[in-house]
Amino acid sequence: MTVPAALEQYLESQRERFEEDLCEILRIPSVSTDSRHRGDVRRGAEWVASQFQAMGLEAEICETTGHPIVFAQSAPVTGKPVALVYGHYDVQPPDPLSEWKSPPFEPTRRDGNIYARGATDDKGQMLTHVKSAQAWMATAGSLPIQLKFVIEGEEEVGSGGMYGFLDTNRDRLQADIAVISDTSQFAPGQPAITYGLKGIAYYELRLVGPRQDLHSGTFGGAVTNPANTLSKMLSALVDSKGRVQVPHFYDKVVPLGDEERKQFAALPFSESAFMKQIGVDGVSGEEGYTTLERRWARPTCDINGLTSGYQGEGAKTVLPSRASAKFSFRLVPNQDPHDVTVELKKMLQAMCPPGIAMELIDFHGAPGFVLPLDSPYMAAASRAIEQGFGRAPVFIREGGSIPIVNTFKEQLKIDTLLLGWGLDDDNTHSPNEKFSLADFHRGIKASACLWQELAELG
Amino acid sequence: MTVPAALEQYLESQRERFEEDLCEILRIPSVSTDSRHRGDVRRGAEWVASQFQAMGLEAEICETTGHPIVFAQSAPVTGKPVALVYGHYDVQPPDPLSEWKSPPFEPTRRDGNIYARGATDDKGQMLTHVKSAQAWMATAGSLPIQLKFVIEGEEEVGSGGMYGFLDTNRDRLQADIAVISDTSQFAPGQPAITYGLKGIAYYELRLVGPRQDLHSGTFGGAVTNPANTLSKMLSALVDSKGRVQVPHFYDKVVPLGDEERKQFAALPFSESAFMKQIGVDGVSGEEGYTTLERRWARPTCDINGLTSGYQGEGAKTVLPSRASAKFSFRLVPNQDPHDVTVELKKMLQAMCPPGIAMELIDFHGAPGFVLPLDSPYMAAASRAIEQGFGRAPVFIREGGSIPIVNTFKEQLKIDTLLLGWGLDDDNTHSPNEKFSLADFHRGIKASACLWQELAELG
Repeated sequence: MTVPAALEQYLESQRERFEEDLCEILRIPSVSTDSRHRGDVRRGAEWVASQFQAMGLEAEICETTGHPIVFAQSAPVTGKPVALVYGHYDVQPPDPLSEWKSPPFEPTRRDGNIYARGATDDKGQMLTHVKSAQAWMATAGSLPIQLKFVIEGEEEVGSGGMYGFLDTNRDRLQADIAVISDTSQFAPGQPAITYGLKGIAYYELRLVGPRQDLHSGTFGGAVTNPANTLSKMLSALVDSKGRVQVPHFYDKVVPLGDEERKQFAALPFSESAFMKQIGVDGVSGEEGYTTLERRWARPTCDINGLTSGYQGEGAKTVLPSRASAKFSFRLVPNQDPHDVTVELKKMLQAMCPPGIAMELIDFHGAPGFVLPLDSPYMAAASRAIEQGFGRAPVFIREGGSIPIVNTFKEQLKIDTLLLGWGLDDDNTHSPNEKFSLADFHRGIKASACLWQELAELG
Repeated sequence: MTVPAALEQYLESQRERFEEDLCEILRIPSVSTDSRHRGDVRRGAEWVASQFQAMGLEAEICETTGHPIVFAQSAPVTGKPVALVYGHYDVQPPDPLSEWKSPPFEPTRRDGNIYARGATDDKGQMLTHVKSAQAWMATAGSLPIQLKFVIEGEEEVGSGGMYGFLDTNRDRLQADIAVISDTSQFAPGQPAITYGLKGIAYYELRLVGPRQDLHSGTFGGAVTNPANTLSKMLSALVDSKGRVQVPHFYDKVVPLGDEERKQFAALPFSESAFMKQIGVDGVSGEEGYTTLERRWARPTCDINGLTSGYQGEGAKTVLPSRASAKFSFRLVPNQDPHDVTVELKKMLQAMCPPGIAMELIDFHGAPGFVLPLDSPYMAAASRAIEQGFGRAPVFIREGGSIPIVNTFKEQLKIDTLLLGWGLDDDNTHSPNEKFSLADFHRGIKASACLWQELAELG
């Protein structure tokens, strides 16, 4: 069902004001990592809260251990689902300043885009849901479902205050589905719903051999070399077919369905363009899977860092005392990072030769997430996006993790709709961050439709 | 045959003067790496030259690209071999000064040792040959063989000037055997002849994947990770039995003879003391060989350094753009470092997966060296040492390389007798360097006997 004609007209008539509001929040340098901007971050929270108050919603600035969280909600609608909208009003630092074509906190229109720090991540995307609520309130006097907004100010610095807030406000935040717009479309003009994220298990392996670096001539070959041992251990993690060799690693992996593989294959993905983008002349990975399948839906193992011995220029004949590696597995549903840790530790310990002391540090783990493709929420979001963007979304997954999605699942027992209005080349975290103004308005319309579509679910 | 009685008496009567001369040269801070000591280094050369001149030998201070070389020679002796004595008068920097119990350039006697920078490396050891020549000249008016001395001032900084000097003075340096005292006895009271050194082949392997570090979630598993590839390549260099896997690596290796293995096994070597010294609770290496065999006589492969990706504290989910390793093989006679390079490169290139650009940098190579145990020079040196030290030497090898030994072999076509008067705990290159005064005098006597024993060879 389409949204009321009055609402459509309102969206059309308010385009300029919406853009002006977007510029207003983009002018606030709410850089959460920089203590000199503490006041600006609070101004960001106040600006967001005032938006909700202006449209007649209950809104509150909630103090946390760090920057404040804005919580707002509309009236309950009996018999209809409750949606929890998450977003963030803090931004990354703008450095290096010299690379910006226009100043990062002076939003500037160029080629149909708005350029500013936070344009897409996440002020612009977050604002689409605020504006869609405002449109409903202004034209219908109420929302078709109850909306709860949690807009935080520490997303770019690890959401430290968010977890405590969730913990102490579990009842107040109760909802049926979460909605986040902080990701990307599949391609320009091709909206997407990200229905799966990978989990992660991150480790540091530290090996210690002799008390100090030794002369590799005098001692080499007779004293166990921790760097040689490290290469053996790391090499054993993945076989020549790209299969992770930690015992039982694949036991609980949900296999890729035929339907899903067909969908991935149907996406307009160019492997040669992908290779060109990252600057390589070939790719490799787990045998039997395509590049998109590897990136989105298969568990992986990557070494993130290596350190040992002499790293300067030239040659030094040293048998290093220590060697260490950081490495991580990306997990898919239903792999459990804890299981990986247990098996990994056993495997490495069994490989540890005489003369080497081994320490495995377990940094952090998070399970993967996937929203079933046949979920009614997905269908509702898909219809809403089609109305907003004039084109049905494709369904994609992502190799990264979004910790808040796991937290919603664990603490609130709800799934999340990841509805990205951004584009891959929006320069998130980089100079000249931008957001397409057309997509800003399409996002507002899709969001307005989403509340209606969710109401239809009953 | 023993040396003339007059010579023996001379050595006995001159003990004090020899020690005073030793102190004199030890007072000269001839630190070759430090330009502030340039004048001191030259004073060192002048002092050495004056020793030869005082005993009536032809001596010359030869300029090089760096610090000068002292060249001296005695008269030719028809029908007798010519020995080339090599040593160095430069020393390592004395830092950290605060750890010295007595100042590094104020030689101090304690517990039968002389403490000073350069005491054992190499002023004290080198001086034994100067003093033995002086004893012959003073008592017999001539030496029983022709001696040629090359005493350089850049050993601690890579002997830069030495190679040019050797090249342009090849005729003048012609000899039958070289003699160097710059190594150690096997244990206190147990003199040794080092008859074998390992060669070396040192490499840096650089792997480049994507143009820049990537997000390991978004790209991991689909983009070839250079750190993963590096661990595979390095791991393939040595198998689980400690055997190097570079093709044809062992083809030319001279196997350890039964006689040699028996000799090694008979040495008073304690593996538990060795482990304690380096601070490990176990050792490992090539299967089927003992620790001494591995250290001295079997080729090895050690990783000397590893660098890739994130090396700071905590976790960073990066798929690194680059990964590199420094690693080296220690070679035994008759392995050729050039052959290793060719096969290694082929092997690694065959392993290089799509999306990785590989560069193998060949740093430096040197073949191993071994003087046959049945060489008449060895027998002569053994008899001389037995007379000097009152105990027959054991025959040992060393895992390190001494480049000048290879250069003598290549350029002058002569072998080298490595007659070490030092001890393992002499603190070479460390604070509180020392040299046993008893060994200083024993070394002088052994050296004096050596000229006689070499003369006996014919």
